[in-house]
Formats: sequence, C-alpha cells, structure tokens
Amino acid sequence: MKTIDLDILTTAFAGIETIADPAQVAKLSQDYHTFSPVLVPKLEGKVGDIVVRPANEEEVLKVAAICAKYRVPVTVRGAGTGNYGQCVPLHRGVIVDMTRMDKIVWVKPGVARVEAGVKLAALDKQAREIGWEMRMTPSTYRTATIGGFIAGGSGGIGSIQYGLLGDRGNLLALRVVTLEDEPRVIELRGDDVQKVNHAWGINGIITQLEIPLGPAYPWAEVIVTFEDFMTAAKFGQALGNADGMIKKLITIFASPIPQYFHALQQYIPEGVHSAFLMVAEPSLESLSGLVQQYGGQITYEKPAQEAGKGTHLAEFAWNHTTLHARTVDTSITYLQSMFPADTNLQLVEHMYHYFGDEVMMHLEFFRANGKVTVGGLQLVRYTTEERLNEIIRYHEKQGVQIANPHTYIIEDGGRKVIDPEQLKFKEMVDPYGLMNPGKSKVLQLKIKS
Amino acid sequence: MKTIDLDILTTAFAGIETIADPAQVAKLSQDYHTFSPVLVPKLEGKVGDIVVRPANEEEVLKVAAICAKYRVPVTVRGAGTGNYGQCVPLHRGVIVDMTRMDKIVWVKPGVARVEAGVKLAALDKQAREIGWEMRMTPSTYRTATIGGFIAGGSGGIGSIQYGLLGDRGNLLALRVVTLEDEPRVIELRGDDVQKVNHAWGINGIITQLEIPLGPAYPWAEVIVTFEDFMTAAKFGQALGNADGMIKKLITIFASPIPQYFHALQQYIPEGVHSAFLMVAEPSLESLSGLVQQYGGQITYEKPAQEAGKGTHLAEFAWNHTTLHARTVDTSITYLQSMFPADTNLQLVEHMYHYFGDEVMMHLEFFRANGKVTVGGLQLVRYTTEERLNEIIRYHEKQGVQIANPHTYIIEDGGRKVIDPEQLKFKEMVDPYGLMNPGKSKVLQLKIKS
Repeated sequence: MKTIDLDILTTAFAGIETIADPAQVAKLSQDYHTFSPVLVPKLEGKVGDIVVRPANEEEVLKVAAICAKYRVPVTVRGAGTGNYGQCVPLHRGVIVDMTRMDKIVWVKPGVARVEAGVKLAALDKQAREIGWEMRMTPSTYRTATIGGFIAGGSGGIGSIQYGLLGDRGNLLALRVVTLEDEPRVIELRGDDVQKVNHAWGINGIITQLEIPLGPAYPWAEVIVTFEDFMTAAKFGQALGNADGMIKKLITIFASPIPQYFHALQQYIPEGVHSAFLMVAEPSLESLSGLVQQYGGQITYEKPAQEAGKGTHLAEFAWNHTTLHARTVDTSITYLQSMFPADTNLQLVEHMYHYFGDEVMMHLEFFRANGKVTVGGLQLVRYTTEERLNEIIRYHEKQGVQIANPHTYIIEDGGRKVIDPEQLKFKEMVDPYGLMNPGKSKVLQLKIKS
Repeated sequence: MKTIDLDILTTAFAGIETIADPAQVAKLSQDYHTFSPVLVPKLEGKVGDIVVRPANEEEVLKVAAICAKYRVPVTVRGAGTGNYGQCVPLHRGVIVDMTRMDKIVWVKPGVARVEAGVKLAALDKQAREIGWEMRMTPSTYRTATIGGFIAGGSGGIGSIQYGLLGDRGNLLALRVVTLEDEPRVIELRGDDVQKVNHAWGINGIITQLEIPLGPAYPWAEVIVTFEDFMTAAKFGQALGNADGMIKKLITIFASPIPQYFHALQQYIPEGVHSAFLMVAEPSLESLSGLVQQYGGQITYEKPAQEAGKGTHLAEFAWNHTTLHARTVDTSITYLQSMFPADTNLQLVEHMYHYFGDEVMMHLEFFRANGKVTVGGLQLVRYTTEERLNEIIRYHEKQGVQIANPHTYIIEDGGRKVIDPEQLKFKEMVDPYGLMNPGKSKVLQLKIKS
C-alpha cells in the first residue's frame, strides 16, 4: 500500500464535503468496541487520515475512484454504533461517512427504499404515517443508520417475530459502489443480497437499500417481575411460543441487572428477576393470563399512545443493557451467545448457576429457522482476558454458540469463516483490498502483497 | 325432556322471525358432515322442529327464555359449514339461526368487535379499508360466520402465521346468552374466553365476539410444482421456517390431488406434486430463491391486485380440497391429522409410501406452540368404515394425532375429553342440558335424567 499523501487526497476530493480536523477525524474513527476491554488496547490509536461525507451516489462514485486510484484504505461508517470495531480504520486512510445520504426514496405498504445513511428512527416516522415500521431495529435505534445496521448488525427488537437480518426476506435489495479503477454501481436483489448483507461494510460501499416493513402495531411496554430466574426465563420462552400473541421484544434480566437502570428502579425491587416486553395492545389482555400462569407480577405498563414519551424499554434491551451497566460500572463487559433451541432452557439454567454473579444473565428471545431461540448478552464482571476467554470456551464446550464481541477479526467473531459467495463478491468489488484491510484473516494476506 | 308442542312455541316466538316450512327447516338442520360416509347414515333424518332467526341480542334472550321454559333442545348455527355435524340437531327442537345478527360493531387497528352472524368475508372487506384483516379464516371464507368459526372451527388460512384459534390471543372476548330460566348475558374476556372457544356451540348462545386482526398484506397466490413429493413437503417446511418471509398459506398436494381441480389443471401437469401458497408480495423475490433451492417450478402467480378476481387458491386448500375432490368422486372422504413437529417429516414420508393411492397426501403447515407443524387433511378412497378406522388407528399408533371427522361425539373427535373448565361453564349456562343434547358422552347422561 502506498503512503497516503493528504494534500493530493484533499485536492482530489474538491467539491465533496471533507473533515480534516484531527480531533473530529479521531471521533469519526470510533465506534462502540469500547464495550470490550480486550478490544480497547488493540484498537487504540487507530484513526483515519481524512473523513469524506458524500451527499449522493455520484459523489460516492468519485470518492471510490479516487481511493482506488491512490490505493487508499477506505472505512465506511454510518453512526458508528457497532461493537466489533467495524468502523475503526485499521490502516488509516479515508473514512467515508454516509450520514448525509439520508433520503427516503419511497415507502410503500410493506417495503421501503432508502439511502444508506437514513436513520432507523427517521424511516419509522415516515413509514408509520401509512401504518408500517421497520421489522427489526437495534437498541441504538435513535442514532443508527440503516446501512450500518445491515452491514454490521444482525437483529434486535423485532427479531422475536421476524428472525435475524440474515434470514431470507429481511433484506430485499441493495446497491453498492465498487472500489474498482472505474467504480460501478451494482444492484443486488433476492438471494444475491447475501453477498453484502452483514459483510462488515467491506464488500463495496452500500448506497441504497430496499427493506421489508412490518405492520406498525400499537406497542405497549411492560415489565413483569418474578421471584425465580428460571421461571422468568420459561415465561419468556412461553410468550415467544404463543403464536396468537404479537410481540416485538422479550428480554429477561436476572437480578441484579435491573439495578443498573436508574430510571426504572421503582418498578423492579432488589433481588427480583424481570421480563421487559413490547407487546401489541390487542395481545395485552392475553398477556395477563400468561403472566398469572407463571406467577409473575406486572409492575409497569406503558400504553402505545405514550410510546414517544419518557423511558423506552427497548433502550434497556439488547446491547443497551451493557451500555447502562457500564455507565454505573465500567469494569463490566458482555458476551453474545446463542443457546441451542431447547425449550427446557437447561443450558441457561446450568450457566446461571455455574457462573453465578460473575456472568449475569441477560436473555433475548428471537426466532431462528422457525423456532423461538434464546440468545444471551450476558454481563460479565471482567477481570482478565484469560478469564474472559475461559468463560467463552466453557460456553462453547457446553454447546452454546458464542459470537465473540472481543475480536475485530471477522473469522474470530460470529461466523468463523467468511461465506465463499461473499468472498468472491468482495474480490470483484474491491480488487485492491482497500476496504478496511485487516478485518479478515483470509483477506489480510492480500493487503500485505 | 318434554314433548315439543310446536303451536305453543310458535305463539311464544311471536314477533321474532321463524321458519316452519319443513323443507327449509330440514335444510337448516344440515351442515357439511356429508363429507363423511360414516356420519351420513348416523345423522340421517335428524332435523329440528322450527327455525328461529333472532335479529338482536334482546331477541336471543327471549328465545333462550322460551326454550328454557319449555325445556326445548336448542341447536345454534351460522352458515352450517362445519364438518362434524355441529349444526345437526340430535334431538329435534329449535334451530337458532344467527345469520341475521350480522352487525360489525366496530373495527380498530388490530381488533374488531362483531355480532356472531357476521360473515368472515364481510368483516375482511370493512377491516381492509383501514389496512387489517382476519388473522385466519377457513376455506369456507365466503359463506362462514365468525360465531360458527369460533364455535366449530379450529384454524385455517393464516394459521401458518398465528397458530390456531385456541391459542391464547386469537380470541379476545365473547358474549353469550345463557339457557337459564332467566337468561343472562355473560361477557368473557382474556383467558376466560376458552370456556366457550371451540365448544361446538353448546356453551351458551354466542352473540358477540372481539377478535384480533392481522395486517392486510398484499397477498400473492403462487403454485409451485415438484417432481418429488417429499421435496415438495420439505420445501413447505422450509418456507414455514423462513421467519423473514410472510406467508398465509402453505399447502402441499401429492399427485393426483390437483387433478380434481378443474380450474387449475393447466398449471399442474399430471404426475407432479404441488405447493399452493399465499405469500406477501414483499416476500415474492425471496420465494424464488427458496423455490430454486428446492428445484421447484413456479407455474402460477397471481398478484395481490387481482385478489378479488377469478380463482382463489385458498378455496382449494384446507377442507375445500375435500370438497373439490368429492365433486369429482363422491366416494372420497378425508382425515384430519397432526404430525408431531418433526422437521424431517419422516412420518409423512412413511404414511405416503405405506398407504399409497388409498390415502392421498394433502398437507397444511401451521404454527403450534411456536413451531411450524404439519397437519394432514389426507383424501381417503373410502371402502368401509372398518377400513377407515384401521387407517386411523394405524396413524395413531405411529404417533400421528387424528382429530377424527367421522364422529359427531365431541370426545371421539379431536380433544378426547372435554376441558373441565368448559364443562363447568356449560353446566352453569345450560343447566337443563338443552344445547344440542347428545353431542357429548359426559353430557348425555344428564339429558336422559
């Protein structure tokens, strides 16, 4: 790779918005990998040289041509809410900030087409005017962009109904700009979208996406408390399995996790376990029946009408749980795990007792291949990297799949190997291996050559 | 039970619409139990004495008081599209025809309140104006009433998304008029609805219902053909498991079943097996990918825009399959079976080969307790009752649950025993055991005393 001459780049980018101020560039070289005490030292000091903020696809094409010409590394970012260091440039270069491309191209019943930099909340606002909303969103819903969510995310609030982003049907089309000498725009539809879906933003620069929408039910938010953790977990599974009840979020917290949520402490007495739920209002009466069956107690209920006001339960779920815990205790980190579909939740119970307070149970229910599955974003009281790895290995040995959020290397995270179709596409659209080189073991070889 | 004096009854009913013409009364004593060659002789000649057609709840209260006073058996009916003889009066008496009570009380996003005699199609028409529709409907959608569906049905088109009618959340409230000396109106909500849900219309006279609605997706209708039956079945399972794809109907027909569908023969060559699907249009592109993966061929695709026109695939599915087959060959009857949730579909495969052409495979996929489950409404080439029972017993021995549609006795059908809560409620609302006496073994004792 050539040494980067900033002056040449700045001149080349003339007419396109850029940011060269080192403090701002440093800020835009960051994401939420700071949740991991393992990643922080590894990614420390990794910054880009310049940020470019294209306003439209034409400008993206120009940026791509310039970067290809000068063989400059390119790191694409939305709001930078990822946790694997997806937005941290490992080999300096150009940061492409997509947030100016925030046009909602169209919204139809069940489908929307947007530019990559559209914020999830902005799309929802417009979609809800005609009765629809995003099928699933991360807990960073208010700030995250759709392009970033597709490139770096995997699911979230809504996954209990629609599964994960990688499931067929949850992404309908996308357009990428290539990093070739003469950059092209490629539109992928149908199964072809998987060539770019969840490819950590290194398979071309996503400019537009077509995503399916779900019906905008009136969502009520509910907290249910339980004396016993496993009863709470089983309640979550039963609610997940209740096909006649419409839900968007089923989160289970073992005590003492909710004690980290200052705004909600009055609803969750110390020592009890709790379920945080988003349920469609037509299912609320049925929910009481299920809660009663499991001996739970509804301590908080916020009607859909007040959805815009005050506390939003979803912002305590998924990885926002970790965020809240870390504002109280920065030594806390987390796991990302998938328990085998198992209605008895035996492995959950085993881990709950085995690790005790060191690994605090935070469960998220979602659908995987047609079954209600339990994921864990357990909070870990961090001591050393060795101990963290020991905890991870123990889970894996018992059959719990870990999508390790303590690595920035793709193959060491959730997928272990890069899908060959993705790799093939990557090689076509990024022939010089410029897109955040260093993210992948198999691709690192290329950069060095 | 007293002997019925028609003159006294007729006088008592003054001011309420009645039908006394024997031919019409006989017609209104019928339903679709005629699908079963076993039930036909058993229910032959069973007719009511008079039909009464209340226009509102006040009239229902009057009818109930009169029937209680004179201890007259009461058989409630909607459109009479049931298949278990639910509407056939076993001990004469009064037929209460609810079809005049067809008021839609209100429709809100996600919920509707209706009188029992509202036709499913009529509710859908009004609900769709605000973007909603019934979550599930039987194949008799155009004629069936909501009260009849709840009292005598169990699920149908839509159950692949929402499960069965008995699942918590699929019925929100109902009102019944009791058969006491001084009849009351009782409103049941939440879990209490299960006291009347699917109670074969003998737990009080249902006058109003509150049901949840689902989003009115633009539904496309698709036929996919396969060379191999088990590939078609596995495709059905995979589509059911595809959480990111929105579907309303997954029906699999073994050859030669589709040959009974005259209107569709051009799309299904002889000897091939087929899937009849209703899929939301935003999921259509993803469907092609899945079809390709299973080596199927899309031979028919009707866009949602044309939903109102021509052939409607749903009217060839669920028990309409049997109807179509019987119009060609009246010797055909059917089974109703539930295969254990089993992704390998081994039992389906076993039965397919074991019975060959005698039991033609017709599968309907639906959700049960959170899992995609396969139901069979197999077409049977009927020879004798003994052979039919042998076929049923063989299925049961292998672990296939049979909801026997060849009996009019509740306990011999799907549930084997009457739910104790339903029984308790029944005893309260119908203290004289007037509601179609003879439908239940446990209740028959009462009538004789």
